[in-house]
Amino acid sequence: MKDFYFINQTKILFGTGKITSLIDELPNYGGPILLVYGKNSIKKNGTYQVIVNSIKELGFDFSELSGVPSNPTLNIVREGINLAKKNKIQTVISVGGGSAIDAAKAIAAGSLVDHDVWDFFNSDKRPKVALPIIAVPTVAASGSEINGGTVITNQDTKEKIGIGSPCLNPKVAILDPYLTLSLPMDYTIYGIVDMFSHVFEPYFNGEVISLEIQDNLAEALMLSIINISKQFLVDPQNVENRADLLWASTLSFYPLLFVGRGKITFEVHIIAHAIGGLYNIPHGAAIAVIIPAWVKLKGKKDEMFLKKAARFSQKCFKNENINDTSDGNDIFELITRWFSQLGLPTSLKVFDVDKSECDSILLNIDRSQKGLLKNRLSDNDLEIIVRNLF
Amino acid sequence: MKDFYFINQTKILFGTGKITSLIDELPNYGGPILLVYGKNSIKKNGTYQVIVNSIKELGFDFSELSGVPSNPTLNIVREGINLAKKNKIQTVISVGGGSAIDAAKAIAAGSLVDHDVWDFFNSDKRPKVALPIIAVPTVAASGSEINGGTVITNQDTKEKIGIGSPCLNPKVAILDPYLTLSLPMDYTIYGIVDMFSHVFEPYFNGEVISLEIQDNLAEALMLSIINISKQFLVDPQNVENRADLLWASTLSFYPLLFVGRGKITFEVHIIAHAIGGLYNIPHGAAIAVIIPAWVKLKGKKDEMFLKKAARFSQKCFKNENINDTSDGNDIFELITRWFSQLGLPTSLKVFDVDKSECDSILLNIDRSQKGLLKNRLSDNDLEIIVRNLF
Repeated sequence: MKDFYFINQTKILFGTGKITSLIDELPNYGGPILLVYGKNSIKKNGTYQVIVNSIKELGFDFSELSGVPSNPTLNIVREGINLAKKNKIQTVISVGGGSAIDAAKAIAAGSLVDHDVWDFFNSDKRPKVALPIIAVPTVAASGSEINGGTVITNQDTKEKIGIGSPCLNPKVAILDPYLTLSLPMDYTIYGIVDMFSHVFEPYFNGEVISLEIQDNLAEALMLSIINISKQFLVDPQNVENRADLLWASTLSFYPLLFVGRGKITFEVHIIAHAIGGLYNIPHGAAIAVIIPAWVKLKGKKDEMFLKKAARFSQKCFKNENINDTSDGNDIFELITRWFSQLGLPTSLKVFDVDKSECDSILLNIDRSQKGLLKNRLSDNDLEIIVRNLF
Repeated sequence: MKDFYFINQTKILFGTGKITSLIDELPNYGGPILLVYGKNSIKKNGTYQVIVNSIKELGFDFSELSGVPSNPTLNIVREGINLAKKNKIQTVISVGGGSAIDAAKAIAAGSLVDHDVWDFFNSDKRPKVALPIIAVPTVAASGSEINGGTVITNQDTKEKIGIGSPCLNPKVAILDPYLTLSLPMDYTIYGIVDMFSHVFEPYFNGEVISLEIQDNLAEALMLSIINISKQFLVDPQNVENRADLLWASTLSFYPLLFVGRGKITFEVHIIAHAIGGLYNIPHGAAIAVIIPAWVKLKGKKDEMFLKKAARFSQKCFKNENINDTSDGNDIFELITRWFSQLGLPTSLKVFDVDKSECDSILLNIDRSQKGLLKNRLSDNDLEIIVRNLF
């Protein structure tokens, strides 16, 4: 096990109807308040009204930033920062998917500095302070509500870059499964793939491959996600099942589960970010197309991967017909069969991105994710993966 | 899943040699400092000198409270509180097993109030503030370094009572596997049983019996502990293995793993506390004698237990020759076989406590743990368990 340092100060409030606890939490941080959200769906299910009523009842001033897109842009972050500075915002509430929470984090850090917020993403500069954030996820997917990471897309340069800092950890995460009920089937399933990938990547892509406790815990969580996803297909409106999904998503990116693995290279995510910077494809959908291509590549050349893949197949897919070492095809088939049950896309073509875009994607990986893949995936590996996305 | 609230602000520093980081952490909390520890073993392995040198280099005054016994007493806590008040202590460093850390917590809370510290244990009053604590466990067992619980024995009334408060969470936990290397075989094994029981009890004794994610994670952690214990027997001085044990013990009592189960009744621990209040038996050893007796009782009468026991046997002991419902004997045999491999005692007689003490034990359960077992174990159940401890 590698040395590690861990701290996570986010307070979690979990339960159906917990959004009503916002009124108890807000006075700890104060106003004026900036409310960051995405689409108008929070108005339809009443969440918006509960939040606004709570703010008004406490007598705080507030501003709104709506329309955060699903790959949150630098533009909307800059707009939020201007609002925050102008209105002397003290607390940021973000309601929505990972995009709304990620945007809120960048705004919370950017509004306390004089330089442009993008400096945090394209240089070594990292946020040291940020406004307090209260995160209310309405999508079970990113786990952004429980960690200090944020991923922002620069719409001009097509770079989609992730950074992290402990000061970006939300002070409070309100996990209210009821708020996720209205999310459509396809986006819920994209969320399932996203949370799965947050465990799958450290499991396969850590500097230390094999760790007794961490491997067992990761397998337990991946098995849980697979089981819950199947229950979800049978009964999508079951709130107990949605509660499980929401809790799984939060745990999946809870940093405690990665510790001791040393450096983790999120190879699949890095490719997904390069694609997300170019095309407006839902993050989880991109992940769903990349994972099988990535598994196929690893299965052809990586001995360590094949050993672990055998264990993964046994523990997460209860596949007993597997040897001590995978042949690469078995894990590929188990994953693609599960993805196919979930009705996930198998090609970027579904999102009107054609095979002729391969070179643009490869170029954007090279340009925007430069250095992150060092010693992990060669240019040739990347080319094989990207050509398999169609 | 039941609603829950979770926050854990302890900073974890993990790695061999991490005790040297104390010098970087101390200035955040300041002096004068109270150093709480148990036996002189920390002087033998050099830990004491590293700590004292760090304190002196920073120029802080410090006092010492040594000789904390393995079931920490109210007497030693009161002595620590007097010292802390007299010397205007600002930070408490505790080095040792769960006993030293539990004593430090009671001192940290008791030195900020005017009333007697025992009021926190025998009334509804709970600590609201406490001095900052830096915990340095030298035994992989209690998990006290990562939570807000403390268990103190009143040597006069023979009550051993546990309480919890978020303010008792250590600010920093320094997990340095090297410091656990000198712990003798028998105490290391008592620690293994203790950490196992911290996962085993919520798994079987939560208000909500069956939870997809939480059950899978608990099984993963129990399986890890069983596996590591077997590796430990083969190579007790392997520091990687000690690192696994230390990390497992911390995770085992990390409150995040219990959430969503509603009220958890630590039935085995409650009985162990009543015994620990009467006789100076190592906590983990008492747990090792009680678990089989408890399993035997449950196996005879509790349908829910038998269902879950079957799953437990499959997942944690890889026993495939088990049906959907356990017959009670299977789980009993798996656990006792493992305990026997570890060389654990099977009777309290080993500690010079005779069967004639049954009534005293039952009386002390009734007196000191009154109410905690409500609707869980009847007087008759308790009598059956206690008679089986010999």
